[in-house]
Amino acid sequence: MNLLDGKKIANQIKDEIAVQVAEMKAHGEKVPHLAAVLVGNDGASLTYVGSKVRSCKRIGFESTLVHLPEETSEEALLQKVAELNANDAIDGYIVQLPLPKHINEEKILMAVHPDKDVDGFHPTNFGKMALDMETFIPATPFGIMELLRRYDIETEGKHTVVIGRSHIVGRPISILMSQKGKAANATVTLTHSRTKNLEELTQKADIIVSALGVPDFLKADMVKEGVVIIDVGITRVPDATKEKGYYITGDVDFDKVAPKASHITPVPGGVGPMTIAMLLKNTLLARERRQN
Amino acid sequence: MNLLDGKKIANQIKDEIAVQVAEMKAHGEKVPHLAAVLVGNDGASLTYVGSKVRSCKRIGFESTLVHLPEETSEEALLQKVAELNANDAIDGYIVQLPLPKHINEEKILMAVHPDKDVDGFHPTNFGKMALDMETFIPATPFGIMELLRRYDIETEGKHTVVIGRSHIVGRPISILMSQKGKAANATVTLTHSRTKNLEELTQKADIIVSALGVPDFLKADMVKEGVVIIDVGITRVPDATKEKGYYITGDVDFDKVAPKASHITPVPGGVGPMTIAMLLKNTLLARERRQN
Repeated sequence: MNLLDGKKIANQIKDEIAVQVAEMKAHGEKVPHLAAVLVGNDGASLTYVGSKVRSCKRIGFESTLVHLPEETSEEALLQKVAELNANDAIDGYIVQLPLPKHINEEKILMAVHPDKDVDGFHPTNFGKMALDMETFIPATPFGIMELLRRYDIETEGKHTVVIGRSHIVGRPISILMSQKGKAANATVTLTHSRTKNLEELTQKADIIVSALGVPDFLKADMVKEGVVIIDVGITRVPDATKEKGYYITGDVDFDKVAPKASHITPVPGGVGPMTIAMLLKNTLLARERRQN
Repeated sequence: MNLLDGKKIANQIKDEIAVQVAEMKAHGEKVPHLAAVLVGNDGASLTYVGSKVRSCKRIGFESTLVHLPEETSEEALLQKVAELNANDAIDGYIVQLPLPKHINEEKILMAVHPDKDVDGFHPTNFGKMALDMETFIPATPFGIMELLRRYDIETEGKHTVVIGRSHIVGRPISILMSQKGKAANATVTLTHSRTKNLEELTQKADIIVSALGVPDFLKADMVKEGVVIIDVGITRVPDATKEKGYYITGDVDFDKVAPKASHITPVPGGVGPMTIAMLLKNTLLARERRQN
């Protein structure tokens, strides 16, 4: 069993970006500037956004955190989005999800200018991705692809089962892995809540990408020997014995599944860190595109 | 074996649209106006465009055929597209593919205004489709979905194997059938030229959508009893004994496969007529959206 060490690869990617940023600075060029909009005080969201901002600092990006109160109106948030679109200093920005219930997420995401949409959530960018055009790939599937590429995992013709059809993971990774190219060309089956024969499918899969958010969902008897497992689930399980009051776990019953797998991502330390690294990569791409 | 009679359903849909158009006229409203741009004199393209224009007439749409010579420059075509975008009389239009080799298709399709893109090929519309938002669904997959709905074919949880990952059929139908909703909620496997175990997959499939363009590709020993088969292949096979000098055939070895199938589309008379009907439906939707 080989660990797909997302933390290590994410650090490599950040180091590579840091070198490029240092060169930009040396040439007197503007460095990439990422902004993050956070509405309210959801614990996980605060952690994610904080981590993104710290990563920016570490690699030499400029960053701006726009932290708005929970009661911010949809109109006020749309106004903020319009400001960020118009602000020439900002190369890319994200609106951290989920948003408070009184705000229409789709409306907000549609308002983000596609050229600054480093999350790749805008339909124009999503459509370009699905049509094999150059665009911003959503950070989590982008991170999975990069992890597969850097570990040189053979995907061509491999039967890949994706569990979960979310817009931010399951749907885009099923598209990306079935396209032409490196870490792609796989035969992909997208499964979801209405799938009847899930075990039958996972038992034959060469590669499984689980993006369900249900702890210990994928058991050892559901996979074959030599399978490659990408665990995208990140669930906070309450645990009073932990300092933070919870621990993080994935979709995979790791201790039992790992011995059967040829490669597997841990949680934490797998796909999570890759997601942040690829967001930074997208921000660098945004800067480069605006430069040219 | 039940025939999925695309010709019959397409005529029903056209009749339904004709009733709506007659009502529009009766209320003194503008009727839908579809334009088609054809560059050059490709035989199949002339047939398709001619058929689209005739269908418009039949159901009371206005239509405009913009027929440009083979040697039209990319710049001149972009100019024509800009004119159609600006022309308030036109509700929607298509640029018939393929275009001559000296013209960049992607550049042309990107220039079509998404609100008039009744083919649903623009990334913004494609992305909306992939993200479950309201949009123009590309006519061929839209036609397949409508055929499944009108024949009340059960798709929920059914294992569907799509053969071919083209942008106009395989990719979008794999997305649509795996989404939530009617004629959807299927477990979809997208197969393509790099798939290694195609027969193994098709033999287990409850539903097969073949969009390959290889005559008689799908044989009887590749499918199980009771399968539902949607044949999207349309190939012109040269045949001197036919008046036109060719005959039309699909991807499926129909005579041998049909007895095993619970439902199957013929070629011609299956998906083909549905495609035109759904293009008209999209044009009606374009008119209604502009009205509101």
